[in-house]
Amino acid sequence: MINIAVLGYGTIGSGVVEVLGINGESIKKRAGDQINIKYVLDLREFPGDPIMDILVHDINIILEDPEVKVVVEVMGGVEPAYSFVKQAMLKGKSVVSSNKELVAKHGAELLDLAKEHDLNFLFEASVGGGIPIIRPLNQSLTADEIVEITGILNGTTNYILSKMSEEGLDFDTALQNAQRKGYAERNPAADVEGHDARRKIAILSSLAFGMQVDFEDIYTEGITKITDTDIRYAKAMGARIKLFASSIRGSDSHVHAMVAPVLIKADHPLFSVNEVFNGIFVRGNVIGDVMFYGSGAGKLPTASAVVADVVDAAKHIGKNIWTIWSSKKLELTDINQIQNRFFIRMAGDIDESKAEVQKIFGEVEEVTAPDVISEYAFITQSITELELKEKKEYLDNVVSTIRVRF
Amino acid sequence: MINIAVLGYGTIGSGVVEVLGINGESIKKRAGDQINIKYVLDLREFPGDPIMDILVHDINIILEDPEVKVVVEVMGGVEPAYSFVKQAMLKGKSVVSSNKELVAKHGAELLDLAKEHDLNFLFEASVGGGIPIIRPLNQSLTADEIVEITGILNGTTNYILSKMSEEGLDFDTALQNAQRKGYAERNPAADVEGHDARRKIAILSSLAFGMQVDFEDIYTEGITKITDTDIRYAKAMGARIKLFASSIRGSDSHVHAMVAPVLIKADHPLFSVNEVFNGIFVRGNVIGDVMFYGSGAGKLPTASAVVADVVDAAKHIGKNIWTIWSSKKLELTDINQIQNRFFIRMAGDIDESKAEVQKIFGEVEEVTAPDVISEYAFITQSITELELKEKKEYLDNVVSTIRVRF
Repeated sequence: MINIAVLGYGTIGSGVVEVLGINGESIKKRAGDQINIKYVLDLREFPGDPIMDILVHDINIILEDPEVKVVVEVMGGVEPAYSFVKQAMLKGKSVVSSNKELVAKHGAELLDLAKEHDLNFLFEASVGGGIPIIRPLNQSLTADEIVEITGILNGTTNYILSKMSEEGLDFDTALQNAQRKGYAERNPAADVEGHDARRKIAILSSLAFGMQVDFEDIYTEGITKITDTDIRYAKAMGARIKLFASSIRGSDSHVHAMVAPVLIKADHPLFSVNEVFNGIFVRGNVIGDVMFYGSGAGKLPTASAVVADVVDAAKHIGKNIWTIWSSKKLELTDINQIQNRFFIRMAGDIDESKAEVQKIFGEVEEVTAPDVISEYAFITQSITELELKEKKEYLDNVVSTIRVRF
Repeated sequence: MINIAVLGYGTIGSGVVEVLGINGESIKKRAGDQINIKYVLDLREFPGDPIMDILVHDINIILEDPEVKVVVEVMGGVEPAYSFVKQAMLKGKSVVSSNKELVAKHGAELLDLAKEHDLNFLFEASVGGGIPIIRPLNQSLTADEIVEITGILNGTTNYILSKMSEEGLDFDTALQNAQRKGYAERNPAADVEGHDARRKIAILSSLAFGMQVDFEDIYTEGITKITDTDIRYAKAMGARIKLFASSIRGSDSHVHAMVAPVLIKADHPLFSVNEVFNGIFVRGNVIGDVMFYGSGAGKLPTASAVVADVVDAAKHIGKNIWTIWSSKKLELTDINQIQNRFFIRMAGDIDESKAEVQKIFGEVEEVTAPDVISEYAFITQSITELELKEKKEYLDNVVSTIRVRF
């Protein structure tokens, strides 16, 4: 029997209890031993809940119990999660975490600590919910140099963009719709401003390139400025707007990373990733393109990933699973140097705009959308972000700018 | 330094040499040690090729060299691959194989042998080329009971069906086209009759359900009977025809498996898997739906998967990686009991056909396609394969029957 403790009895914590209940028998076979939840740590009480018998409020009970071999941290937030996880490892316990804030900030350090103590620090559930992506990156794509990793990593924003596209809703209505369905928080900033996706791509980039990518360094735009008119243009082009979190290694080996809405067409593998689903596209220099798709959030899918990590930890008691994520910082390329095509909409007199644009951008691809009048829209040739900024200084009436990936 | 030997210097074998050449440095980091190809075994000579210095014609040189820790079997076919692999393991060497015939037939036995001797038998490349699917099944989806695993597992047939759909080609022309491009063999039977996909779904099913699924037990239909007229109907329905290799556990826990063309619509995660790409859809009872997508064949993608297995084997010298695939046979449900909707086309007088169909099938969904005349087409309600057979006995003019997955 392998004893574990679960820190935090929120959505994911209770999901972990549920998954071990539903699939206990098959999990036992795969782990080679029964997984037993000895403690659940939470400050709250849960009268009537079966876990009341194993509920504790003091982390030290768990830390001081040598029978606990694996600690599952599903509390979220950096503190006190970080202190608890570190102490648990110093006490010889492996840790499984679903906590993207913790992993993005302290991943490299906690992996080092695990290695030093012949333990494991596993965090499959921190990115992409149930989708296997961390383990494939660490263990399956080891023959490749990763050239690009691009994900739709936030289900809330993907749901909002899907609804705007399918039902012609504006942003606010689609957001309220998502909140009603429980897909968006009452304070949706972390999702809609792109902060959630930013931490997740920081984690994936660190693993893909083996060095510390600080999430604060990643240029990030959310989806709050996307309007139903933008979506109408996208449709007219046979395109969709998706919030991409992306990290690309250029031919000079420098990496640039960005979270931003982009226009893509049907030939992109992430085009069909809709609603609350997540998708992660990886390009390797020998494997070519691979894509992983599934539920990016949700109680049971996320708990499934957590429990799979518990199984792995249980199978590797006393043996560290090698993960390359050096604490050495990876300096990202200045965003200003990145090239892109840009979709731009301008209000005001069409002929004037057109003349202005021709003078400043040269040849562009004009775009129209049904029922959108009194504005001029176009796609630039491939230019750098810096060039775009400079050129936009000369334009008065820009109402929207979106990066184009086709 | 970890010495390996490569058995077979064909497409994949030379790909393995190439990948280790291109990415040697990063592979070394991930494996924790340099991977050195000490021998390549092939009956042929390769004058002028750099591997001439390490080419051997006698397996015993490899078997008797205790420095060789990992043997890479990329010869294909059951014999002599099986004897070589078995002898290598008896000599204490881990084995990596890309050989679906070998794995489908002897996987359970070779995994047992590996376990007994604290070695590893790894075969990521045997299914889905470069796509990580074997390791995710074994190590990432361990918290789930697998309910369904359905793949587009053969790139050749997917290419042919894609070309028929995109360019309106008939089967023979699309096949010739595939042969010209090197996507289909001169003797294409293994692909177009479904035998290749059959072995692959047998391997995936064995891993998903932990018991031996004999490929001979899997009902298999190829794509040779699919016509351009079928494709025209598919398009009219907004559907596509795909060769599915599928294994599903029913509510009674019994598993049925099948390789056959099916009609799917855009809401199926495999709908966008076109050209030579492969996709594998997995449904778990807690994770929900996940999908893996990538190059299902090709020299470098397949070699990438082989080398990733070599890295894993190198990291686990002396320690077996647990894989559940018992040699106990899984008895599949009789195909006759499986329920499906069926798309059926009938030649001859439309009104007569219609009357006949109504009598025999009751209410059906009629289907028409542009420019297709003088025939009656419809989709049945959900009935068993046995019911279908019985009902079809009463119909004279059936020209086509395709299973429907919507």
